Amino acid sequence: MDALSALVKSLSRIPGMGPKSASRVAYFLLNSDQEYNSTLADRIENLKSRVHHCSVCGRFTEEDPCSICEDPTRERAIICVVEEARDVQNMESTREFNGLYHVLGGVISPIDGIGPDQLRIKELLERIQKENCKEVIIATNPTVEGDTTAFYLAREIEPLRIKISRLASGLPVGGDLEYTDRLTLSRSLNGRITLSNG
Amino acid sequence: MDALSALVKSLSRIPGMGPKSASRVAYFLLNSDQEYNSTLADRIENLKSRVHHCSVCGRFTEEDPCSICEDPTRERAIICVVEEARDVQNMESTREFNGLYHVLGGVISPIDGIGPDQLRIKELLERIQKENCKEVIIATNPTVEGDTTAFYLAREIEPLRIKISRLASGLPVGGDLEYTDRLTLSRSLNGRITLSNG
Repeated sequence: MDALSALVKSLSRIPGMGPKSASRVAYFLLNSDQEYNSTLADRIENLKSRVHHCSVCGRFTEEDPCSICEDPTRERAIICVVEEARDVQNMESTREFNGLYHVLGGVISPIDGIGPDQLRIKELLERIQKENCKEVIIATNPTVEGDTTAFYLAREIEPLRIKISRLASGLPVGGDLEYTDRLTLSRSLNGRITLSNG
Repeated sequence: MDALSALVKSLSRIPGMGPKSASRVAYFLLNSDQEYNSTLADRIENLKSRVHHCSVCGRFTEEDPCSICEDPTRERAIICVVEEARDVQNMESTREFNGLYHVLGGVISPIDGIGPDQLRIKELLERIQKENCKEVIIATNPTVEGDTTAFYLAREIEPLRIKISRLASGLPVGGDLEYTDRLTLSRSLNGRITLSNG
C-alpha cells in the first residue's frame, strides 16, 4: 500500500471521519510544511506517555492528582459524577460548577457486557465518605444507559444520607417545541420549574 | 501548554476541524492503543518524504513518472486538466475516463495574486504538442476562478487546433429544480442536451 492510502486508512479509523474527510486531511498534510507535520506526529506519538488518568477523580491529567483535585479553592463537599473523562471539560466550560469530579469510565450497559463492577463506583463511595461529601450531582447522559446508571448510583449512595441530584433534562436552549421529540418534551414537562405559586 | 491542549491546537489547524472535533479526536487518541497512535504518527511524519508530485502530470505519487502516466493502456491523446492533485482521485472514481491528467496547481485568481505564470500552463502546452494530443478536457471547478482559468486555457490551446471541451455544469444527480440556485439552473438550461430533433 502506498504512503498516501496508508495514511488515509489510519485516519479513517477516527470516529466521525469517513474516507472523504480522511483523504481531505491527507491532502492537507501533503500541502502543509514538514515542520507542522512533524510537530503533529510528535504530539500524537507522545500523547499517551504524557497524559494519564488522575488517580483520584479519573480525568485526564499530566500531574497526579490533577489540578482540579489539588485546587484549594474548589468546594470539596460537592462531587459531580460523569461518564467519561472528556465530559469534565464540557462541565468546566459552563463555569458554573466549582466542586470536584468523579469519572465513572462508562455506563452500565448489559449489551456491551459492562456492569457496575467495571465502573469506578466503589472508588466514588469511598471518596464520598473520606472527603465528607454533602452532595453528589449525577451528570450521566440522558440515555437509557445513563438513566440506568444514575438510578443504580442513587440507590448505592442513598444509605450515606447525602443530597443526590441529577442534571435537568428538557428542551435545549434555542430549541423549538415543534421539533422536539416526545420523550424530551415529556421530561421537560415532568421537570417543569415553578415560576410562581399563585 | 499541556500535551492534550497542544495536540488539540495542532489538530485545529486542519481545515474543517473546529476546536470541538479536534478535542474529540484527541480524546479518541487518548483512549486508543499506543500501536495505532505510533503508526498514525509515523505515517504523518514520513508522508511528505515519500509522496511527491509527478514530474509529468503533477499528481501525487511515490514513483516518478506516476502509474497513470506510465500506464500503456491509457489513451495518451486525451488530457484532462484539473486544478489540484486531489481532483485526479475524484475523476478516477467515475471510472469513465481513460486518458492522462494534467494538474495546474491552482486557478487564476488575481485577488490571491495568482496569475497564469504561477500555474503549470506552459508545461501543459508543451505536453499537448509532444504527446500528439487530440483533445483537452478542462475540468476546473464551476467557480469564477475556475471559469476564468478555463477561458484562458481555451484561448492558449486554440492555436494548436485540437478539440477542447469542458465538464458540463448543471443540476446534480438527485437534485431538485426547487432547491437549485438561479446560476446553476441557467447553466443547465444553456447546456441542455437534445433528446430528439423532431
